[in-house]
Amino acid sequence: MQSSPLMISGILHHAEVAHPDREIVSCVTDGSMWRYDYSAFAERVRRCANMLRDIGVRPGDRVTSLAWNTYHHMELFFAVPGIGAVLHTANPRLSDDQIAYTIVHAGSRALFYDPNLAEIVDRLRPKLVDVQSFVCLESNKTRNDPCYEPMLAAASSQLEWPRFDENEAAFLCYTSGTTGDPKGVLYSHRSVVLHAITAGLNSALGFSAFDCIMPCQSLYHATAWGLPFVAAINGCKVVLPADRFDGASLQQLIQEEEVTFSGGVPTIWTMYLNHLERTAETTGSLRQIVIGGSAVPRAMAETFQNRFGVQVRQIWGMTEMSPLGVLSTPTPKLAEAGQDVLDDTIWTRQGRRQFGVELKIVDEKGQELPSDGESAGSVLVRGPWVIERYYLSDASALDADGWFDTGDIATIDEYGFMRITDRKKDVIKSGGEWVSSIDIENAAVACPGVKFAAVVGVFHPKWEERPILIVEPHEDSTVTAEAMLAHLAPHMPRWWLPDVIIFETVPLTATGKIDKKVLRERHARRLVQDGAAA
Amino acid sequence: MQSSPLMISGILHHAEVAHPDREIVSCVTDGSMWRYDYSAFAERVRRCANMLRDIGVRPGDRVTSLAWNTYHHMELFFAVPGIGAVLHTANPRLSDDQIAYTIVHAGSRALFYDPNLAEIVDRLRPKLVDVQSFVCLESNKTRNDPCYEPMLAAASSQLEWPRFDENEAAFLCYTSGTTGDPKGVLYSHRSVVLHAITAGLNSALGFSAFDCIMPCQSLYHATAWGLPFVAAINGCKVVLPADRFDGASLQQLIQEEEVTFSGGVPTIWTMYLNHLERTAETTGSLRQIVIGGSAVPRAMAETFQNRFGVQVRQIWGMTEMSPLGVLSTPTPKLAEAGQDVLDDTIWTRQGRRQFGVELKIVDEKGQELPSDGESAGSVLVRGPWVIERYYLSDASALDADGWFDTGDIATIDEYGFMRITDRKKDVIKSGGEWVSSIDIENAAVACPGVKFAAVVGVFHPKWEERPILIVEPHEDSTVTAEAMLAHLAPHMPRWWLPDVIIFETVPLTATGKIDKKVLRERHARRLVQDGAAA
Repeated sequence: MQSSPLMISGILHHAEVAHPDREIVSCVTDGSMWRYDYSAFAERVRRCANMLRDIGVRPGDRVTSLAWNTYHHMELFFAVPGIGAVLHTANPRLSDDQIAYTIVHAGSRALFYDPNLAEIVDRLRPKLVDVQSFVCLESNKTRNDPCYEPMLAAASSQLEWPRFDENEAAFLCYTSGTTGDPKGVLYSHRSVVLHAITAGLNSALGFSAFDCIMPCQSLYHATAWGLPFVAAINGCKVVLPADRFDGASLQQLIQEEEVTFSGGVPTIWTMYLNHLERTAETTGSLRQIVIGGSAVPRAMAETFQNRFGVQVRQIWGMTEMSPLGVLSTPTPKLAEAGQDVLDDTIWTRQGRRQFGVELKIVDEKGQELPSDGESAGSVLVRGPWVIERYYLSDASALDADGWFDTGDIATIDEYGFMRITDRKKDVIKSGGEWVSSIDIENAAVACPGVKFAAVVGVFHPKWEERPILIVEPHEDSTVTAEAMLAHLAPHMPRWWLPDVIIFETVPLTATGKIDKKVLRERHARRLVQDGAAA
Repeated sequence: MQSSPLMISGILHHAEVAHPDREIVSCVTDGSMWRYDYSAFAERVRRCANMLRDIGVRPGDRVTSLAWNTYHHMELFFAVPGIGAVLHTANPRLSDDQIAYTIVHAGSRALFYDPNLAEIVDRLRPKLVDVQSFVCLESNKTRNDPCYEPMLAAASSQLEWPRFDENEAAFLCYTSGTTGDPKGVLYSHRSVVLHAITAGLNSALGFSAFDCIMPCQSLYHATAWGLPFVAAINGCKVVLPADRFDGASLQQLIQEEEVTFSGGVPTIWTMYLNHLERTAETTGSLRQIVIGGSAVPRAMAETFQNRFGVQVRQIWGMTEMSPLGVLSTPTPKLAEAGQDVLDDTIWTRQGRRQFGVELKIVDEKGQELPSDGESAGSVLVRGPWVIERYYLSDASALDADGWFDTGDIATIDEYGFMRITDRKKDVIKSGGEWVSSIDIENAAVACPGVKFAAVVGVFHPKWEERPILIVEPHEDSTVTAEAMLAHLAPHMPRWWLPDVIIFETVPLTATGKIDKKVLRERHARRLVQDGAAA
């Protein structure tokens, strides 16, 4: 057989010739809209590639993007790897220090940024000594830096995409770094293409040429599940909301562009449902929402499915996995068990095994655990889009048999569905027994009036550690600690019930997850101070 | 990223852990039925692999199967490549000489055969000097050769599948050899796995875990579109009809096993529809039929879709392409053009581009032709599951840019759908102008009473070549040459109308296609003999 390498430029070529007239529609940070098709997109990506070469970007060079979900960003997704360079997608929601750390660590020689992120760039500029080109992703010059659109217009649209080893790097994505410095993960052309083909299967996202997808997870997070590539392979229309993820903006795009699929963290869909509640509008063409990053509140899934006929699926993965691990799509065995079991599994489990990612749960001695829905162990993964080592690290991130320890604790049930019970670093051990912080949080967030719920373990003189619960209620909520406890009691062993319930604003990380590190520090001595020890 | 090779054993492992209880149901040539699940299947494949090692099969060795669509054959599909050996799937419908040629050319050291093909084996045995082990795929010993089931029972079920270079060979498939000796095509683990993942996408077969597939194309033909692998990746139930492709047998399997998908040549579906006609039965759970090998008669497609609600799709490919090239699945642009255009395109075009196979049509100078539905040119393909060179050949099968010339002539329309207008070797050139034999055949086969229709070009003293039409009518048909001509006239230019129409039995090749080589030889001097020259 031919030794054709798997190339990201091959995905672009396919989109251009196989579905040239499917559209890409993008909000722009200046409030305008942009609309073109894959044919015009491919031409602009070629211009962008030539422009990159014109400013001196060479194969292997790192190029940083600091940008939202826009067509500019999507052009960089194909142009930078297309010429053999590496796109580092910086996260604008990190602290200045962390953003600077990743750009310096990446050794980027060019930085492309959205105009409304210019202030960050100006603050960081003195630290970014390796960056030789700063380019603002705008149409009309407002700043001293060169401006993307005129540069593109000046570049040639003629280009023969180079072929090279499919194991060459294409993307450099950093973990969110809630524990220590962010760590870089290099994605190769091979890993991106294999991941994108597989993600299109019906066990995963199941896109067809009739889908219109709107990524509401950020392009700078692990390539937004590779959605730009999955869409281009399957001929999906793409709708990019820039940085506007509020309910009204999303609803406008869904209605006007006939979006069928979207995905993102639960917070966004809470805002979206609130918007529908206020306006009495419906979900229109929306067919499916895939939710990752945090557990899906059951009420949300029920509302989407039962009131609006929108399927809700869970997804689990991580930057180290490109990022897709498991997805909660139905199986015949689940369907035979009845609608209640099916709904419950789909909504409360992170999902089932996908082709390409080997996955097992093991005990502390490394012995594989049974799929009985009870035995909880470390989740290990292996496969062609799983990390081998962190960027610039000498040490392998794998064990002797090539498995990567995800740091998550999970069970796998008789249907093959994995349920994350904890992050290893969030594990609470009380009197020598594990308490599942995630189980308590899931129960707590299902209590009426609760917006966010976080459980952390804090020092306890007798039990070593005990769970405490931090709750951020909705604005109009009158929920009390007594009501919370009454709500929680039926759902867990008595000794899991949190010793203290604190009502306060829950801190979020740059990736929109609850920042347990902050909570743990803030409340470290809570049970000692309160004299709650007994 | 990890350097995990793409292995066929990885597909087996996935099926075993991700959908252990999905079933494989198989007819057996002795008339019995076999039923197990992927978990039991994987265990038997491990036994089979150990048995292969026990009889001395080593990595790189070729092993021949001479077998129908049975579970035994499917076990060999995974076990032989699993240990690094190469499965040569011999075609029992070839002539003795051709079968022997392929086995000798492959240099096979073991031959596994179905009991009802034993006579062929006994005739060939003296010629098969390299074959050291003859194994009969049966349960109870009826012959002198060793017997598969006791050998499996004696082998260990413990095996760690070896990992090796994904570019190692896995299958050796021979072309049907209608022009000269059959030629071998080596499939690698990489090409088989990539082909199988991509074939599951919704642009192609679009399988889900809820599908039950029944391959009615033979496993020995280019791995039956890779269906055993596509099924195992997607968790489909598999139903194997052995060698019984008559309408009644297929209908029984479809009804009892709730088959949702099947595929094969049109002849099989003609027999199936005839059975439904006779019995007034319906298609039950059947959702989709994919037809390849020959053009789909429109009446067949209409009957399936309009009377039974079964979607009919076309497929085009060849042994040199693993074999999938294009499939006729709908697109939004087609849907917008209305149901008539959509049906017409899906049923009369071979299909649209699929991710992974680059495809273009070129003129005689190699210049790419436009997608205007008019310009016909040679179909060239390129990609990771396209042949590089034939087995044991020193010469590349590709042009300087890595393209493989398929030998087909086609147009591509504005919707991106390819229509084969001729095989290069079947091209008829009359007075310097091309006549499309396929267009005339399609029109002829749509005439009531016609079972098969074949057009070949024969020598003509004035026009160099002229088309003649050979028709095999249905048993009860009274169709005449005059009626045929009247039927054809509105569908083509006057000078395309065949000079002679001959009613006779149409010869078929070992792969069920019309054997034009025979017809061309048989009727070579027809227009001279008849004095039809003017």
